Amino acid sequence: MKKESFSKHIDLKNIKINDPFWNKIIELVRTDVIPYQYEAFNDRIEGAEKSYCFSNFRKAAKAAEVLREGKKLPDYPVDKWQYTDDNCDENSFHGWVFQDSDFYKWIEAVGYSLSNHPDEQLKRKAEEVIDLICSAQLENGYINTYYTINNPEKAFTNIRDFHELYCFGHLSEGAIAYYNATGNRKLLDATCRYADLICETFGRGEGQKKAYPGHEIAEMALVKLYEATGEKKYLDEAKFFIDERGLKPCWFDVERNQKTRDGDHTYEQAHLPVREQKEAVGHAVRAVYLYSGMADIAKYYCDDTLLDACESLWNNIENQKLYITGGIGATVDGEAFSFDYDLPNDQAYAETCASIGLVFFARRMAEVYPDSRYHNVAERALFNNILSGMAEDGKSFFYSNLLEVNPEACKKDSRKRYISPVRQKWFGCACCPPNLARMISSLGEYCFAQNDETIFIHQYVGAEIKADNADIRVNSTYAENGRVQVSISPKKPIKLAVRIPEWCRDFEISAPYEIKNGYAYISITEKAEIFLDFKSKAKLIKCSNLVRENAGKAALSKGPFVYCIEEVDNGKNLQMLRVNPQGSFTDDGEAILADGFREKADTSLYSEYKSPEESPAKIRFIPYYKWANRGENEMTVYFRV
Amino acid sequence: MKKESFSKHIDLKNIKINDPFWNKIIELVRTDVIPYQYEAFNDRIEGAEKSYCFSNFRKAAKAAEVLREGKKLPDYPVDKWQYTDDNCDENSFHGWVFQDSDFYKWIEAVGYSLSNHPDEQLKRKAEEVIDLICSAQLENGYINTYYTINNPEKAFTNIRDFHELYCFGHLSEGAIAYYNATGNRKLLDATCRYADLICETFGRGEGQKKAYPGHEIAEMALVKLYEATGEKKYLDEAKFFIDERGLKPCWFDVERNQKTRDGDHTYEQAHLPVREQKEAVGHAVRAVYLYSGMADIAKYYCDDTLLDACESLWNNIENQKLYITGGIGATVDGEAFSFDYDLPNDQAYAETCASIGLVFFARRMAEVYPDSRYHNVAERALFNNILSGMAEDGKSFFYSNLLEVNPEACKKDSRKRYISPVRQKWFGCACCPPNLARMISSLGEYCFAQNDETIFIHQYVGAEIKADNADIRVNSTYAENGRVQVSISPKKPIKLAVRIPEWCRDFEISAPYEIKNGYAYISITEKAEIFLDFKSKAKLIKCSNLVRENAGKAALSKGPFVYCIEEVDNGKNLQMLRVNPQGSFTDDGEAILADGFREKADTSLYSEYKSPEESPAKIRFIPYYKWANRGENEMTVYFRV
Repeated sequence: MKKESFSKHIDLKNIKINDPFWNKIIELVRTDVIPYQYEAFNDRIEGAEKSYCFSNFRKAAKAAEVLREGKKLPDYPVDKWQYTDDNCDENSFHGWVFQDSDFYKWIEAVGYSLSNHPDEQLKRKAEEVIDLICSAQLENGYINTYYTINNPEKAFTNIRDFHELYCFGHLSEGAIAYYNATGNRKLLDATCRYADLICETFGRGEGQKKAYPGHEIAEMALVKLYEATGEKKYLDEAKFFIDERGLKPCWFDVERNQKTRDGDHTYEQAHLPVREQKEAVGHAVRAVYLYSGMADIAKYYCDDTLLDACESLWNNIENQKLYITGGIGATVDGEAFSFDYDLPNDQAYAETCASIGLVFFARRMAEVYPDSRYHNVAERALFNNILSGMAEDGKSFFYSNLLEVNPEACKKDSRKRYISPVRQKWFGCACCPPNLARMISSLGEYCFAQNDETIFIHQYVGAEIKADNADIRVNSTYAENGRVQVSISPKKPIKLAVRIPEWCRDFEISAPYEIKNGYAYISITEKAEIFLDFKSKAKLIKCSNLVRENAGKAALSKGPFVYCIEEVDNGKNLQMLRVNPQGSFTDDGEAILADGFREKADTSLYSEYKSPEESPAKIRFIPYYKWANRGENEMTVYFRV
Repeated sequence: MKKESFSKHIDLKNIKINDPFWNKIIELVRTDVIPYQYEAFNDRIEGAEKSYCFSNFRKAAKAAEVLREGKKLPDYPVDKWQYTDDNCDENSFHGWVFQDSDFYKWIEAVGYSLSNHPDEQLKRKAEEVIDLICSAQLENGYINTYYTINNPEKAFTNIRDFHELYCFGHLSEGAIAYYNATGNRKLLDATCRYADLICETFGRGEGQKKAYPGHEIAEMALVKLYEATGEKKYLDEAKFFIDERGLKPCWFDVERNQKTRDGDHTYEQAHLPVREQKEAVGHAVRAVYLYSGMADIAKYYCDDTLLDACESLWNNIENQKLYITGGIGATVDGEAFSFDYDLPNDQAYAETCASIGLVFFARRMAEVYPDSRYHNVAERALFNNILSGMAEDGKSFFYSNLLEVNPEACKKDSRKRYISPVRQKWFGCACCPPNLARMISSLGEYCFAQNDETIFIHQYVGAEIKADNADIRVNSTYAENGRVQVSISPKKPIKLAVRIPEWCRDFEISAPYEIKNGYAYISITEKAEIFLDFKSKAKLIKCSNLVRENAGKAALSKGPFVYCIEEVDNGKNLQMLRVNPQGSFTDDGEAILADGFREKADTSLYSEYKSPEESPAKIRFIPYYKWANRGENEMTVYFRV
């Protein structure tokens, strides 16, 4: 591990995004998604599942007051993952046990958004939320509405399932983002008090719990908290969580007196000590959140064996477990990774949150070692699986991002019951929409990085950037045509490293450069204008034939976008279409038209084989992320050739 | 409906099977499967799930004695589908609630087997079993070990779920088969006493329950009981069960005070009155058992609307819901039919029992109206899905018969956890092995039928047949080469109707004939020898492109057999194989060798599309029913062309 090659993303406050493709998405998040979510937290979206966020925090604030007065609260059960009007008392906690995290993700998104675009009204709303959160803090620092309302004495007794450390992680990220954007320390200070309680509670000392998050995120959140406050114990606590994970006896067995059904902790990535983990397994979001934390700790402690594990895990994801759209997690069962090369299209899971987590992991790996593979994958996820998570109007969301959908099957085949053929307004388990909002609002953090010698452009998003050693303006039409103009005013001689996208074989760079690990390094000694031209054309992509169901098929991509075919453009029964790889592919700006054929429908179920009766057809492709914006219909990414 | 075209299968006692293909299978059932199952009922098969049949009947016999003495029994819960050592008292009922039926299916198989092959030792075992069953009969005629042991007062209180009428149906079929074979009336008489209780309990009269079987079979069993005894009330009771089914209010709601979760009775085919049912839905075995009973009643009562429903249901199965192997039931969830054209290969269910039930339905439809389509489907099921259910040594069984299996996925993908990549020794829910035994042992009933004017050969199985109007000897090498020789000595001028197999376009018949509805009708006025030559060659079959996953693929068949590719012959990753439709197909007696190609494995998950690198390969196909007899390995029926 070479410390001198480490880099660090550029803070959002030093980035001003201005990009023809991303502006409207970021603005949509600010003007629509964030306010919409605020309404959802208030349970004011008609026809949507209830969030209960506000009501839980209000109940918790009352409970905190009662406790401060030394009075006793009524106890409610703490035995379920989800509480609804049907299964609990009206005064008890409602919703999923991890419901608080949505609130925190929202604050995080608001913080990022305020960095990019001041908005007094939004700030007022956020501060109302922050006041509410702080009023729900107990005297010992604890903040978690579920246990505070239902039974505060049971806090930290079911670390595996009940998400306290997960909620803490999101609280931290939200508090830091808000503090960075506004300088308002209120939530950050409250968070530090809670973090202090966590540091006291979890560790290897006497009376401490040798536990670690059931759902990871606190690891990377504690690293951020260290970065924001300089408090080293937070970094050490993150390291403790990483180091302890998977050791025997497993805390998840200890806390339930070893009486688990099978003691298999693959789902939570606690099946092995993290340094021995080579294969990405279990719940995909948890996994990539853990791996992100591992990469952080590997970097801060220069821990080569930990980095080796990160690399093995990355390799496994990139080479065996990644959808072409940047989706990960191939099975609904446990929202988990499946085995190598098991990437079913019509039964994918590919949760929006998991791809977001993959981008976190990618950024951290690239900050340790600048190889373009990390941001190539991040780009794949960003432009496809992640953007697909949100409707074009910002008002509905996908949780799973399938690569092939037949709406009839979603309704009639119970194995596909989890699949929604159109985006939903909101989810009871609403992890994805606020996660999307915070990702989009903090996009800059994933685009630009720096160290003493080099400024990295990982993702081509138009922006003005104040780096330590240079001021930069990026003008980008990358999404549209692969062209980028970089104006740079260095404060000292530096290198500018620009990523050569994986999809691009034909590019021009207007200055001399040297290629290393997929980046073109350009020496900058004085003010310069550099033109990058990554020539994009429609091209067919072959998925490895080790992925069984894609044998004999192909997908279409152009630039960073994967394309798909929809029924609304191409009629029902998309499986009857076949694309001619030698035919033409015409881009009309909106869509790509490909030459192909449509088979006549067979009337009999079984018949003697003869060459299929086909008629020529123009097949219309649209970018994958745009699918299902014109009503419920069939869609497929892969097609026969 | 034309009564004069009705026919009736020829009784087993008038059929002596002697066929080079079937002899060894029938003999295997007699010498291995039936004795093996006897051991299983005694829980003496090491490593197999326990059956508990003998022990349940012994407990029930003791309980019956206690009750006869007017004493009270301890009550055990009657609230579960399956009782194991872990969840019940050692003195209570064990196993599945429908466990008794396995015993009855075994007796039925023994009866059929004794018709074909006297066997004193087997007869002794059967009579020991019969004595045990009779000793478990209560004074009112009731026979069901589950309720008798656990709580006789709860009898008939959960008709939907707890299978009493299902067990009664199997008891009847067993008793009739044994009586027909041996003349021993003991079990038949006991069954009639139980049937009388059922006729008293279920009906439209005052104090009667307007119920019908949750799991159908009693319908066709009561028809058989009527045929065996001449007691018309049994036929009427069957008609009552058919007529009442699906009427509102549904008994399944009534018996649980309407407090079902959703009142959706699709699973049990009680969602609509049977005459309004057009689509085959729900649990596939239940469905075809019901449809068989409907066809029986339609025939006996000349009920055209009921027959119309049967025809609609048949059409739906044959044209939209039938696997090429004759399997039905495309989803594990509810062991049920999926929607039209949803026939996944690697997540099929295609239960052995369901195909057996389909043959029951086919025979009954053909007896009403002799169209070859019914026995074409029966042949498809018999030679493929049904035979696949049993290992070549008769010692292990498939419950589901998949069309594509990757053993790695069965182990690592929870969605495929229900799939066994090799046959199992026995099942706790052991419906299929004894069902197979009774089907194979009564094969003759599905081959030959008669009415006043015509003798039908539906299936070409070598046999000597004493029909009412002729003695016939069929010498058949049909399975091997499609050749059949029929020697017939008529007692009066008659027609011999022989089915032209669906797969055969090129055949010779050595006598003049007229084709009608897929049968060749030959006038027989005197002793004659007729040669039938159904020329079979390997041919590729196309599945309708409305079945999404088979688009661009084909299957291989020869004669009545569907073929498959196994890893043991062709290496791993069968999806990399492609067959050349214009190539040669050479049959070496054991297997068919086809010309094709094997793709080189792709090392990278995504790459720019180019024509795949392929090398020529000889692809070895074996009949589908023989698969998984050489250890665990990949298999597929469909392949790319």
